[in-house]
Amino acid sequence: MEDDFAQWYTDVVKKADLVDYSSVRGSMIIRPYGYAIWENIQSVLDRRIKETGHENVYMPLLIPQSLLQKEKDHIEGFAPEVALVTHGGSEELAEPLVVRPTSEVLFGEHYANIIHSYRDLPKLYNQWANVVRWEKTTRPFLRSLEFLWQEGHTCHATEEEAAEETRKMLEVYAEVVENYLAVPVLKGQKTEKEKFAGAKFTLTIESLMHDGKALQSGTSHHLGTGFAEAFGIQFTDKDGKLQTVNQTSWGITTRLIGALIMVHGDNRGLVVPPRIAPKQVMIVPIAQHKEGVLDKAYELKDQLSKVARVDIDASDKMPGWKFNEYEMKGIPVRLEIGPKDIEKGQVVLARRDTSEKIIVPINELETKIPALLEEIQNNLFEKAKKHREEKTSIAYNMDEFKTNLVENPGFIKAMWCGSEACENFIKEETAATSRCMPFEQEHLADKCVCCGEEAKHLVYWAKAY
Amino acid sequence: MEDDFAQWYTDVVKKADLVDYSSVRGSMIIRPYGYAIWENIQSVLDRRIKETGHENVYMPLLIPQSLLQKEKDHIEGFAPEVALVTHGGSEELAEPLVVRPTSEVLFGEHYANIIHSYRDLPKLYNQWANVVRWEKTTRPFLRSLEFLWQEGHTCHATEEEAAEETRKMLEVYAEVVENYLAVPVLKGQKTEKEKFAGAKFTLTIESLMHDGKALQSGTSHHLGTGFAEAFGIQFTDKDGKLQTVNQTSWGITTRLIGALIMVHGDNRGLVVPPRIAPKQVMIVPIAQHKEGVLDKAYELKDQLSKVARVDIDASDKMPGWKFNEYEMKGIPVRLEIGPKDIEKGQVVLARRDTSEKIIVPINELETKIPALLEEIQNNLFEKAKKHREEKTSIAYNMDEFKTNLVENPGFIKAMWCGSEACENFIKEETAATSRCMPFEQEHLADKCVCCGEEAKHLVYWAKAY
Repeated sequence: MEDDFAQWYTDVVKKADLVDYSSVRGSMIIRPYGYAIWENIQSVLDRRIKETGHENVYMPLLIPQSLLQKEKDHIEGFAPEVALVTHGGSEELAEPLVVRPTSEVLFGEHYANIIHSYRDLPKLYNQWANVVRWEKTTRPFLRSLEFLWQEGHTCHATEEEAAEETRKMLEVYAEVVENYLAVPVLKGQKTEKEKFAGAKFTLTIESLMHDGKALQSGTSHHLGTGFAEAFGIQFTDKDGKLQTVNQTSWGITTRLIGALIMVHGDNRGLVVPPRIAPKQVMIVPIAQHKEGVLDKAYELKDQLSKVARVDIDASDKMPGWKFNEYEMKGIPVRLEIGPKDIEKGQVVLARRDTSEKIIVPINELETKIPALLEEIQNNLFEKAKKHREEKTSIAYNMDEFKTNLVENPGFIKAMWCGSEACENFIKEETAATSRCMPFEQEHLADKCVCCGEEAKHLVYWAKAY
Repeated sequence: MEDDFAQWYTDVVKKADLVDYSSVRGSMIIRPYGYAIWENIQSVLDRRIKETGHENVYMPLLIPQSLLQKEKDHIEGFAPEVALVTHGGSEELAEPLVVRPTSEVLFGEHYANIIHSYRDLPKLYNQWANVVRWEKTTRPFLRSLEFLWQEGHTCHATEEEAAEETRKMLEVYAEVVENYLAVPVLKGQKTEKEKFAGAKFTLTIESLMHDGKALQSGTSHHLGTGFAEAFGIQFTDKDGKLQTVNQTSWGITTRLIGALIMVHGDNRGLVVPPRIAPKQVMIVPIAQHKEGVLDKAYELKDQLSKVARVDIDASDKMPGWKFNEYEMKGIPVRLEIGPKDIEKGQVVLARRDTSEKIIVPINELETKIPALLEEIQNNLFEKAKKHREEKTSIAYNMDEFKTNLVENPGFIKAMWCGSEACENFIKEETAATSRCMPFEQEHLADKCVCCGEEAKHLVYWAKAY
């Protein structure tokens, strides 16, 4: 992990049975264990999306090329990375279809159809779907030809309402990522250069991986009236005047699984936070051929299934093999039970996060296990937060900026004048990009870290995935 | 509905806000109400898929053309209807990619990678996904360029185990479709002509629409060793001998929503069976400007939300408008409450299925509503079953066959010799196809309805969607 983080990552996703490769370049097979983590993320987020008044819909996969070109900035942003369907049913198509890289334009067209009056607003839709972007270099979960995501698309009567929605959904993302994935996030606004093609502004949550690189973990865009003008999404307001709607869009993807791996993983493999773990407790019987061991182990499984997601491995493999396997898979708690434990009315619980082993009386398990899972959840979050703090430094000039990036790679807090020229210069010189202007602004200095002109914003910079 | 069923169908899917069209030919936008029905079907079925030991995975959308061609019958079945991606990231691809019409070949390749020993069997995977088939004539839910489905793909050590799985999943489909969608199904086996390309045999559930046409509502295929041989899915058995796995695949699609519409709908619109209905009870306040009405209506909503999925329409539209709207949407029960009802401590419940109105004391609602919803559910199923029975006739010769199809269009039970020539003849003469050889075989006659040769099977025939 310390020697070759990229190789470690590739090994873990494969050995923990999260993904497999296929003959489809740049795409991944998400295996049952990886998909179960995604289902848990979906379930938690989908509930919040619905609780905040949104409805799920499904839009077509294939988009006529001309429709994608209707909003100028949008097509400039996506044209270089689309997959084109040119033939259907053995015939060449009159107009090629784009495999959706995102669905703004379809929502735009649909909203123009169904929105007429202020009574139709707000419209708060979300979609769970696959999207395709033609990436050259790919890595499972982080950057792949195809990925899974949800994309929210909303229409509002006023700019301010849309701004409120943009902020609200970023907060929803931050809450889910911090409280369930135990990944601390930095909330802020993207610079003009880094914002979504066609947006008024883009909000982001940024997280820091174990190797000091940042990962954009969720974005929420205020689209203003740009798309709405291109698609003619208009409504009659209360005074009978024709107005154009303000829109937002926001999304998170299977990338979040990459964040989880790179924030919590260690040299023994994956570490899955309990609240998102498909299996929270794995029972490993010891000397299971001895009378009563398996019976007791299964009895515990049934009993504890009321308070946690529990599984048992009663296969004829050696306990040592099982220990390694479930450590690699990052299952939060291992429960060992053998003949001696049964005699004493106890079990051994081994924590994946600290490797600590504790002996617990069987009759206390129903309360002890949920408490332990919560403790692990909190510990993972606190550890990740401490790591991020240690990896966050300040730079007042470019020399410090470069030194920090080498000596303590991570987030660099530095003041910025607001010019794209400085962002470009920093990127060329250091490969770091502006991650966000954090909501919690500090005035560290008067001058831009790059050009020395008047500083306007505090920016977090980092090399990023 | 009786005059022009096709137009009625198109009107209902649009007016009940199930779908909308877009500039994507042959594809549909599934709107919130339609998608919520799909989510309910997914939720019920996904639980059963997991309870029967299956795990969800996700396979790539785009498949190299050469991989699709690896199994001969398969490519013959699907080649005419695939969409081809020929360009990615502005460049022409060395090999075109097919947008998945189904994922057998990707599962085949993956299983060859991960199955080695009898210990790895069975492998029971399922995927929820979108697929694309280049259909010329399309109709929402019934036949569209893109649709949503689940596809199960499993590997087994023996032919018999695979056969058992094939039957088991058909039973799961039948149970869900009958008990949740209230659509009675006929279970049976497809003829050689109608089976899945490359399968050993195909099992099917067939349902009968209001207009007397059949709808294939779910299929389960025994793939034998055909794909496994093409992809080299082999395992070492307990005796150390190399064996080829037997496979199955099975799927249901968003078509089921089409079945629900065409089985239960009427001239007032959609009728959604309570167990699958996104909203089971719609509260419509009467004279809602009068003091206390809205308060009481909201109070009832909160109270009844414990026992059913309840919503309220407190908009300023007229009650009459609301009645029509929720009848069109097929919400099982309407609850009317006005000042006089409040005085008397009662409400009016209007059933969507029978139009019957009953007066119920408010303090009985918590028990009365769940009971009424069950009654509606059962009534819809029984009505549909009776309709199917009335529309099922017997034919002993082609004259009767043709007369029945005209006088009482529906299922025709007739004996068949087993030859494809007779199936082709019947299709050309009458446009009816063999729907299935039912599990419950009867010996109606000694001779084939078509050629008069020795009869081998009872077959259900019908014109079909």
